[in-house]
Amino acid sequence: MKRILVDMDGVIADVYTRFFELYEKETGKTKTMEEIIGYKEAEAFPEVYRWVETPGFFRTIPIMKDSQRVLKLLNEKYEIIIVSMATEFPYSLTDKQLWLNDNFPFISWKQIVLCGNKSLIKADLMIDDHFKNLDNFEGDTIMYIQPHNINNTSHNYKTVSSWEEIEKLFLID
Amino acid sequence: MKRILVDMDGVIADVYTRFFELYEKETGKTKTMEEIIGYKEAEAFPEVYRWVETPGFFRTIPIMKDSQRVLKLLNEKYEIIIVSMATEFPYSLTDKQLWLNDNFPFISWKQIVLCGNKSLIKADLMIDDHFKNLDNFEGDTIMYIQPHNINNTSHNYKTVSSWEEIEKLFLID
Repeated sequence: MKRILVDMDGVIADVYTRFFELYEKETGKTKTMEEIIGYKEAEAFPEVYRWVETPGFFRTIPIMKDSQRVLKLLNEKYEIIIVSMATEFPYSLTDKQLWLNDNFPFISWKQIVLCGNKSLIKADLMIDDHFKNLDNFEGDTIMYIQPHNINNTSHNYKTVSSWEEIEKLFLID
Repeated sequence: MKRILVDMDGVIADVYTRFFELYEKETGKTKTMEEIIGYKEAEAFPEVYRWVETPGFFRTIPIMKDSQRVLKLLNEKYEIIIVSMATEFPYSLTDKQLWLNDNFPFISWKQIVLCGNKSLIKADLMIDDHFKNLDNFEGDTIMYIQPHNINNTSHNYKTVSSWEEIEKLFLID
């Protein structure tokens, strides 16, 4: 059975929606998606490191649209492993696991990897939004489009912008 | 550079010393190492699941004798990855990372994997105390002797009983 690595932040966890909410809450100002296109997360939101290091932050992330429904179907047909670069932020670890248990209960604890280097993991395909992960992966790759990666034309990955597109790629003949 | 997977509990984290302490604290009775030889952790200490699910538990584990000194030396000569089966217990995750940061500061967050299946990870050698991990690993293996594995003669692993032995194997010509 084909093994697929699925990233959390920016793929099943809609971190940008939460970033916009927090930015508005803290500054009283709003930012739009258009304003941050092409900027890295920490350029678009200089507060991001403080946010992700705060215990509880990762419990409050909205779920990416359609990701629960499509991942549940994928999980029946493929070996799904959820992989998150999380060990840089110790307080994210417990929160991320609890978030997964709550929102993706069909994903067993045996299917989860929290690490600091995704290239350690053997798999056939990676779905991720970060070049640092995709570039070092030996298998096939799909880049999930996010504001920080959309303008980078030096890479040549297959891309998706929604879980509906992932559904079409893997589940609809 | 050869990549070595090093387990936490029972290899660099001296969980048994903590189990004996907690058992005595909770029951007023003592147990000896001789009494639990050949028993699985949960057979020797039926309280173990409650303990490992308690936030804070993994912050209090003593460090295995000589493991800091020897692992620091190994880390200069090999690619060391600390790997722990931890996602079963969400509240262990942050505690384990903080414990590593405190006690093994020379191990970067990029060298840590907290997961539910160690066979996902590519490496040349695994040092572990559990057959469930060693049996499914494709590379070379070293079994760290602990009360729960000492009597199992159906397996035929190279074994060590201390970090001094690991030092002799890898660092002393």
